[in-house]
Amino acid sequence: MSHSFELKTAHACFGGAQRYYEHFSSEIGLTMKFSVYLPPKAVMGEKVPALIYLAGLTCTEETFMTKAGAQRLAAELNIALICPDTSPRGAGLPGEADAWDFGVGAGFYLDATTKPWALHWRMESYILNDLLPLIGAKLPVDLQRLGIFGHSMGGHGALTLALRHPGRFKSVSAFAPIANPVNCAWGQKAFSGYLGEDQAEWAQHDASELMVAQTQAPYPAGILVDQGLADKFLMEKQLLPEAFEAACAKAGQPLTLRRQPGYDHGYYFIQSFIDDHLRHHAAQL
Amino acid sequence: MSHSFELKTAHACFGGAQRYYEHFSSEIGLTMKFSVYLPPKAVMGEKVPALIYLAGLTCTEETFMTKAGAQRLAAELNIALICPDTSPRGAGLPGEADAWDFGVGAGFYLDATTKPWALHWRMESYILNDLLPLIGAKLPVDLQRLGIFGHSMGGHGALTLALRHPGRFKSVSAFAPIANPVNCAWGQKAFSGYLGEDQAEWAQHDASELMVAQTQAPYPAGILVDQGLADKFLMEKQLLPEAFEAACAKAGQPLTLRRQPGYDHGYYFIQSFIDDHLRHHAAQL
Repeated sequence: MSHSFELKTAHACFGGAQRYYEHFSSEIGLTMKFSVYLPPKAVMGEKVPALIYLAGLTCTEETFMTKAGAQRLAAELNIALICPDTSPRGAGLPGEADAWDFGVGAGFYLDATTKPWALHWRMESYILNDLLPLIGAKLPVDLQRLGIFGHSMGGHGALTLALRHPGRFKSVSAFAPIANPVNCAWGQKAFSGYLGEDQAEWAQHDASELMVAQTQAPYPAGILVDQGLADKFLMEKQLLPEAFEAACAKAGQPLTLRRQPGYDHGYYFIQSFIDDHLRHHAAQL
Repeated sequence: MSHSFELKTAHACFGGAQRYYEHFSSEIGLTMKFSVYLPPKAVMGEKVPALIYLAGLTCTEETFMTKAGAQRLAAELNIALICPDTSPRGAGLPGEADAWDFGVGAGFYLDATTKPWALHWRMESYILNDLLPLIGAKLPVDLQRLGIFGHSMGGHGALTLALRHPGRFKSVSAFAPIANPVNCAWGQKAFSGYLGEDQAEWAQHDASELMVAQTQAPYPAGILVDQGLADKFLMEKQLLPEAFEAACAKAGQPLTLRRQPGYDHGYYFIQSFIDDHLRHHAAQL
């Protein structure tokens, strides 16, 4: 259909191109927005590796591209950056925008199974079956060289999608991920709302639970996680990196969990360590 | 008074500190906001050189700090960054927020002389007499090693304040400045509104007019200006870098005016060249 892949805006950036697209997603049943940064060589037509970045609660496809300062090194390393939105928008479900941690802006990167959310809130299938194939078909991106990372709710998304889809993402990292959602208030609210009360189903979307279930290290080259120690959500026990650390130890998964004194939960934290994450992925892609 | 210098928020960033302050300005007669980035050594108490950045129409003290990606290299070069807001806020003048290019968010970095603006719209005196002395007194910043730069309306501000206050700013640069406001629609609207119809007064706030009046190069080490060639405001003749170029030639002022193909007016353009500007200033401070 006419609005299935539409370039909305484009900006030159570090010799490459920062672009914003809209497309109709058949998985979601609505129009979705996403952003792409293409390094200079990709603009010239060369197929390049890519990182998909999943943002946190209340963010959009624009947040990372404006605030993380990632394009400079992505241009140098010749890596594309892809950011989806954080939920469907415009469904018009009752109460969908009443809370900042559920509904609009809070898709949690899973497919809801409960009514009324199951119809549109299908972020996992959207990313895997709609967005990435579309990007592979339309843009100079090599889907065989794909990494995934994210922040907070998006760190949860990056870790769980990486573990749930073996081989699909060659590298993974996270900033302040919600690392054990079945044991925190945000996760319990989202999972009960989107998935119902079956705890076995919850475990399928919990990075720490998924990691414990591994029989061998899924990422032999290591997973990188940065966590600020002045992060109020860490103190409120929403993030629980220690659970993921224990799970990795149990599974034999190499993990570099860096506890960063003084840093909080925001994009000043992310921009401070974004270069390390890009290099972590570049080494594996 | 109690709210004369209040730290509102602080974030660790590249080993330094990103801070947001409020203070009561006696020049403006209202509370003003500003932001400061302190590199790691300044956080430890060392006095460091600083750059004051003046933002464009509709921006705030937050825009540059979230979108320009400047902190990484500022930390490395050991330079503080200071951003004031772009106008008084909260004056409650009739119509003050009706236009995006006049009134709130559009102070043009001058002292208004017309009613009702003259009472509060005193951005030049605010910066010179309130903000900078306050920072020199309260923060580990060496006001003898101060540079100035800015974007669009703030590029106009940087060039004009540098030329109007010899010796105060040791280095100057600009991104897509409004370089000859007496000859563009934005400038004519602002100057007639804030300064009245006396063209001789306008010339005192026009970078190209001020430069022509110089008897020797005020910046022997050079001025750096970047201008995107896909900038719609360039095409609409709001910026007129060619007028400033001609004025510098006439005054014998070394100028590096870089015309950047493909770049537009936004912060993707600014972040692409911010490192060059920081190094330009660092070399002179």
